[in-house]
Amino acid sequence: MSGNEKQKGAPQGGAAKTAITPTREENYSEWYQQVVRAGDLAENSPVRGCMVIKPWGYAIWENVQRVLDGMFKATGHRNAYFPLFIPLSFLEKEAQHVDGFAKECAVVTHHRLKAGPDGKLVPDGELEEPLIVRPTSETIIGATFAKWVQSYRDLPLLINQWANVVRWEMRTRLFLRTAEFLWQEGHTAHATREEAEEETMRMLGVYADFAENWMAMPVLQGRKTEGERFPGAEETYCIEAMMQDRKALQAGTSHFLGQNFSKASEIQFLDADGQQKYAWTTSWGVSTRLIGAMIMTHSDDDGLCVPPRLAPTHVVILPVAHKPETAQQVLDHCRKLAEDLRAQQFAGRPIEVEVDARDLRGGDKMWQWVKKGVPVRIEVGPRDIEQGSVFVGRRDRGTKDKQSMPRDEFVRGAAALLQEIQDGMLAKARAFRDAHTRTIDTTAEFEAFFTPTRTGDENASPEIHGGFALAHFCGDAAVEAEVKDRLGVTIRCIPLEASSETGKCVITGRPSTGRVVWAKSY
Amino acid sequence: MSGNEKQKGAPQGGAAKTAITPTREENYSEWYQQVVRAGDLAENSPVRGCMVIKPWGYAIWENVQRVLDGMFKATGHRNAYFPLFIPLSFLEKEAQHVDGFAKECAVVTHHRLKAGPDGKLVPDGELEEPLIVRPTSETIIGATFAKWVQSYRDLPLLINQWANVVRWEMRTRLFLRTAEFLWQEGHTAHATREEAEEETMRMLGVYADFAENWMAMPVLQGRKTEGERFPGAEETYCIEAMMQDRKALQAGTSHFLGQNFSKASEIQFLDADGQQKYAWTTSWGVSTRLIGAMIMTHSDDDGLCVPPRLAPTHVVILPVAHKPETAQQVLDHCRKLAEDLRAQQFAGRPIEVEVDARDLRGGDKMWQWVKKGVPVRIEVGPRDIEQGSVFVGRRDRGTKDKQSMPRDEFVRGAAALLQEIQDGMLAKARAFRDAHTRTIDTTAEFEAFFTPTRTGDENASPEIHGGFALAHFCGDAAVEAEVKDRLGVTIRCIPLEASSETGKCVITGRPSTGRVVWAKSY
Repeated sequence: MSGNEKQKGAPQGGAAKTAITPTREENYSEWYQQVVRAGDLAENSPVRGCMVIKPWGYAIWENVQRVLDGMFKATGHRNAYFPLFIPLSFLEKEAQHVDGFAKECAVVTHHRLKAGPDGKLVPDGELEEPLIVRPTSETIIGATFAKWVQSYRDLPLLINQWANVVRWEMRTRLFLRTAEFLWQEGHTAHATREEAEEETMRMLGVYADFAENWMAMPVLQGRKTEGERFPGAEETYCIEAMMQDRKALQAGTSHFLGQNFSKASEIQFLDADGQQKYAWTTSWGVSTRLIGAMIMTHSDDDGLCVPPRLAPTHVVILPVAHKPETAQQVLDHCRKLAEDLRAQQFAGRPIEVEVDARDLRGGDKMWQWVKKGVPVRIEVGPRDIEQGSVFVGRRDRGTKDKQSMPRDEFVRGAAALLQEIQDGMLAKARAFRDAHTRTIDTTAEFEAFFTPTRTGDENASPEIHGGFALAHFCGDAAVEAEVKDRLGVTIRCIPLEASSETGKCVITGRPSTGRVVWAKSY
Repeated sequence: MSGNEKQKGAPQGGAAKTAITPTREENYSEWYQQVVRAGDLAENSPVRGCMVIKPWGYAIWENVQRVLDGMFKATGHRNAYFPLFIPLSFLEKEAQHVDGFAKECAVVTHHRLKAGPDGKLVPDGELEEPLIVRPTSETIIGATFAKWVQSYRDLPLLINQWANVVRWEMRTRLFLRTAEFLWQEGHTAHATREEAEEETMRMLGVYADFAENWMAMPVLQGRKTEGERFPGAEETYCIEAMMQDRKALQAGTSHFLGQNFSKASEIQFLDADGQQKYAWTTSWGVSTRLIGAMIMTHSDDDGLCVPPRLAPTHVVILPVAHKPETAQQVLDHCRKLAEDLRAQQFAGRPIEVEVDARDLRGGDKMWQWVKKGVPVRIEVGPRDIEQGSVFVGRRDRGTKDKQSMPRDEFVRGAAALLQEIQDGMLAKARAFRDAHTRTIDTTAEFEAFFTPTRTGDENASPEIHGGFALAHFCGDAAVEAEVKDRLGVTIRCIPLEASSETGKCVITGRPSTGRVVWAKSY
């Protein structure tokens, strides 16, 4: 039994072994799945493509929600809730929109069940009009906005919704691409184009702020090319992050919808000048995909690493008492320590502490918390109590790199330590991204950059290669499509901070007005 | 224009007129719809039976969520998220359960759309097995619990989910009965019957605590008769409130599921004694129906009245400046007052204050806030500033019953005032319920109690009559069904605090072991 326990969760053999098998280098995709599993974040459900978000994963999502919700409210938005179902005819109101979602939507056709000829239940009560489970809510919210907006005094209308949505994806991956996912979708209506454009950029900025300062994930802000736009949008803006396999991940989008949806839904208002006008609308969203982005930005071969500002538990305290007669004293000491830590504030809330007093081998316990990515682990045994010290392990350092320090000093400095870990994670992720971002000017270099090789240290794993290529583009959608087909590379965005440098398209040699960001992507 | 504005929202004519037409006495059902409309809480959507929850209504729901979520976590529960869809075969695993929901469920049969012969889109990609949009999640969560529970060490498993659910109701009413609604569903698994029963009662107690101390809504706690049980449950417990038309409203339920669902889903564990056993499970839920209960418990003929502890805005400040030259001074003064109020805590959060500086007639503004049910309204004009006073109106008193008081005294006492209003609302609701609860011992009195009459003050509206009848019942389900058919009266619950008084069934005269609560109900 104890031999069995020894193996559970703990890396085996020497220092080179890791808690997650395989490592990133060995098999990046499988490593991701194993990090999710070992971190107790989510699992596949019996329903095709739908995931179960487990308590630890959901607690991270709750923190994402809490912080973003505060940011939305601080920028004047209010939450509301709209129907799960969209009548088929509503979806059809915007031509590009329905084209974009028709191939991947769940369709409700009946409203009850009855016993079939063999006694088995079958659908019954066919609906006159099929209902689509919302893949996004522009059309149903648009129909409501048309009622709410009558006069320029009703504008701007700034609404957000936290909801589940369904897109029938054929190939799913936990958090990154699932048939059902959780998200927020902001929907706003404005009197002028300028105001709507300003809102689009404001919310892109909110997402970038959240990504960098809460997720410790550096992002590029940019505009999508036509081929990558949201179906029905006039412009789509995005934040793009680099994962550890150097692929890009679109972490949030903000759409300027122009008057496309207001015309489709008849969102009209009487302006101050006495004219009847169509409103200008925007929509913007982030989803549980952010959890996937967080995992792939920060985790290592020992598992998850949660940025402290989003961690459900900041500090876990592990009582170390080998003799039964000291167990209660050690536990009491740990609980007092937890109390003192909880009296400290970090990032707008009390420091969250868990005392893990489970009857489990200490090593197993520690490895569980490592794999869950808790930022700080504290070990306290009888000798530490005697010395008034604690043994501190940081998730952003090796598991053997532990440090003894005076208990009170640790308590006083805990919030600063968490912020230091947060800052370090952002700096590390930024350095990684910068190291794999390259300015490229020739087709040959471009193709080589995106071609996996098995030689050389840098490309040990064929999955891990490439990065962000800053290269010129002539603007031809056909060229973009050809590169996508041939190399699996797309234009992630036209960066907002693009220099006005002109040049020649890296593919065609035709004139270009600026560099864009090319990458393989999720 | 000004004549038009004068009418908007303000009661017309003398003191007897009200902001809501019709009044409760005139037409209770229609009064309810008008309170919801005037309070800007929710509206019907273009999707059959589904509602749009508007920002003010959703903000109240957010407060409900925040408080309940804290109570769930304080009792050891963690949130998670499970799929929206349930495979038909899962629903069929528990025979009573599927019978209970088969007649009212949304069925997904296809996963994409294609152009039909006439160019119109039609469902395509038929699913091998239809999916049901969850009406409740016992079966899908049960399948997951079966994986999570292996040993007695995995128990108790205490999970909650915040989610949307769909029950295809034919007759819907905003908040009270809608095809889609928002709720929380707790699902727990335990090693013993006793522990599961204890959990069932604990969560019933949490609901009763929330109803009384946060919603200011007194509730009876009790057990359901067999006919009113949740499909598949061994016992269903509930909290029942009395609305102002004296009908009962079931505001929350807590189910002891025995081993029915653990057997259907194979939730088994290896107990400490080495035996393989089925777990004992519970489930419990409250929904957006609570908002409907809150409306009908507290609103009056001027509209909504939100209990201060759940109010999105506690105090609204109305600057009164008739001359342009004083407007800025008054506004500045109001903003400073708002700041000082926000520095005070009430019910675990800062006092929420809104300064309504909109360019609208003062009377119209005031009536909007009355109809939204904000607990306290403050008017501040140049003379009040001079005198260092504020003009205070309370939603629980008449709109003309306003009081001038020193500004600083008001600020210091604001939290106490809010609690006083809260306490008053609970006391009033309790007095109303008690006044319409009657101990009944004869069939004649029972029938008269539940028969609307048009004579006498007490029964001015045929809709408003009856109440809670405490009467003996022989326990025969057929009798219960007959009374339901004939009088529209059901047994709301067998109260937990039932005396052990024996007697004779009010309908059959057969022996009874205790009084039960009969009422018409929502």
